[in-house]
Amino acid sequence: MALISPSRRLRRTPFSEGVEAQGVKAYTVYNRMLLPTVFESPEADYLHLKKHVQVWDVACERQVELIRPDAGKLMQLLTPRDLGKMGEDQCYYVPVVDENGGMLNDPVAVKISDDRWWVSIADSDLLFWVKGLASGLRLNVTVHEPDVSPLGIQGPRSDDLLARVFGDEIRAIRFFRYGWFDFQGRKLAIARSGYSKQGGFEIYVDGSDIGMDLWNALFDAGQDLDVRAGCPNLMERIEGGLLSYGNDMTDQNNPFECGLGKFCNVDRVADFIGRDALLKVAKEGPSQQIRPIAIHGEAVPACDRPWPITIDSEIVGQVTSAAWSPDFHTNVSIGMVDKAHWAAGTKLTIETPDGPRDGSVQERFWI
Amino acid sequence: MALISPSRRLRRTPFSEGVEAQGVKAYTVYNRMLLPTVFESPEADYLHLKKHVQVWDVACERQVELIRPDAGKLMQLLTPRDLGKMGEDQCYYVPVVDENGGMLNDPVAVKISDDRWWVSIADSDLLFWVKGLASGLRLNVTVHEPDVSPLGIQGPRSDDLLARVFGDEIRAIRFFRYGWFDFQGRKLAIARSGYSKQGGFEIYVDGSDIGMDLWNALFDAGQDLDVRAGCPNLMERIEGGLLSYGNDMTDQNNPFECGLGKFCNVDRVADFIGRDALLKVAKEGPSQQIRPIAIHGEAVPACDRPWPITIDSEIVGQVTSAAWSPDFHTNVSIGMVDKAHWAAGTKLTIETPDGPRDGSVQERFWI
Repeated sequence: MALISPSRRLRRTPFSEGVEAQGVKAYTVYNRMLLPTVFESPEADYLHLKKHVQVWDVACERQVELIRPDAGKLMQLLTPRDLGKMGEDQCYYVPVVDENGGMLNDPVAVKISDDRWWVSIADSDLLFWVKGLASGLRLNVTVHEPDVSPLGIQGPRSDDLLARVFGDEIRAIRFFRYGWFDFQGRKLAIARSGYSKQGGFEIYVDGSDIGMDLWNALFDAGQDLDVRAGCPNLMERIEGGLLSYGNDMTDQNNPFECGLGKFCNVDRVADFIGRDALLKVAKEGPSQQIRPIAIHGEAVPACDRPWPITIDSEIVGQVTSAAWSPDFHTNVSIGMVDKAHWAAGTKLTIETPDGPRDGSVQERFWI
Repeated sequence: MALISPSRRLRRTPFSEGVEAQGVKAYTVYNRMLLPTVFESPEADYLHLKKHVQVWDVACERQVELIRPDAGKLMQLLTPRDLGKMGEDQCYYVPVVDENGGMLNDPVAVKISDDRWWVSIADSDLLFWVKGLASGLRLNVTVHEPDVSPLGIQGPRSDDLLARVFGDEIRAIRFFRYGWFDFQGRKLAIARSGYSKQGGFEIYVDGSDIGMDLWNALFDAGQDLDVRAGCPNLMERIEGGLLSYGNDMTDQNNPFECGLGKFCNVDRVADFIGRDALLKVAKEGPSQQIRPIAIHGEAVPACDRPWPITIDSEIVGQVTSAAWSPDFHTNVSIGMVDKAHWAAGTKLTIETPDGPRDGSVQERFWI
């Protein structure tokens, strides 16, 4: 791995001081912000995540706030998912597409009220798309990036840790619901969500000034729980089939290809951008789709570019995320595979930079 | 410096193979793409750049292409700079602002024809802003990211190197003009421009497939010129007063604050986004502005966050880029300073993470 040159442009977060104190070893850059990728080692971080509880600096999931009378209207224009029955305590995973049905982001929308929404974004400047639309359509809405930074609490002891800081009511929050909790006199939205399959929460830290106070409060409260700083773990997220925008899909893919058809209510939602394009795909079905793929043999190198998938030297797809899984003793990967070859059990060749490897389409992800 | 974790999301470029073969030591991430920052060392790279010629992988200056009948109309909506007299062989440095006059990007616009433009962007997803506007305004235009990757040729021997590959006509290209040149049967736009003050060109490489062929042709042709792989050099760009979007300015700054008032024809251009906001600033003048600031004493640490500027403990601005200058024997820096204190010669205190340092506002940048 090469070094990363520091600059203001690669933004620090309200929690960077804590991350550094815990010995972060590597970063990626996500929404022009530093996102830790390794603390002890990828495998040690993975084993700890599955057993204990971790605090994750995911401030890079920046918020796009839509506020004022047309906020709800604009929010529905952004996505094929029907927001009509969404409550003021709910979060929805929402594909956001352009006129061609191409994915621009796969954020989590948080409904604060009918005329106030937070969109917790994956790695693309969704702010610019929403601002451009609001301007072009002359909507009565303000769109901006507020000083709100998510802090992830992930792992099987997440409820125990948060209950100590916020009280036992935290345990009652249901999946993709959120509640308001007090910290130092400030109301914070806490949702049961996050970028792992080990359970946990995301705290929407409203104000950078309280970031390190909250960080420290969590570590003070969780000493006997072996709480550690962690981060999205490549091995665990691939095992769990959690997609990564920019890795597993880009604006060249529609939501059906990404297996997100269940979030596309193309018949029910009368007016969203990309409807014509998605109606067509919904009717015909996608010609390729994301699949879990096992890559046999020893550990693969880092997947820093798409790896072609071939059958008899013909390209039938590509792998875009891959890692060795300590628990499943195989390389787990995410790939986009042509319809003719996506059935579970299909034998494939994966063309890695180190040479071809045998693989096979799995029935489901490793969870 | 920490390590950077590879992933497809941090996109490789058509020239990555060449960059790696030449021993790149560090990267930054720019428009979700790898941008080299160090080859031999920052100082060795700097000294070489000022004396010889370098080839820079600046593919991260992604292009936003506007094409079809409303392209010209949309292009003018994006910027306060008057594009009315722009020729089909010209590049313009254009501030792009939102309704509030806040900077969204400071790209170079390349006019191919009235209804076809490339916008060579700084570090923000300008594509999304332009697509959002085009959609909202229902313009007859296609906006997308073409497979066009700039390759920089920088340094005093740039003309000599390019003349060997493209012919002596290259010498006749004027500053911020471009011409069409043949390479392997493909027409490439080559402009006299670039992100250094040492002279040179940017080749708009149209098609990733010829990237490494061109890279190799340049190195083959320039062996006796001591041509090397290089990259934007922090020391040299600060000496030269070249601004960096995301470092020295953000959407919280208007173009006048950035010293870009000369590119704002707010009276002459009748219809651009942000006109009301900029008319007000143009009339009243900015309340803060970018200034060259010398920071006295030994070399400063990396500027990875804004450093407050104080006078008698009162905050009067911030430094956002800083580096030791081998040629000028001082720390050169770029800061935003309040009007009351921006006069050349003003003594300042710069609050670095390593403690306060004395500095002073300079009359001009170090060139």
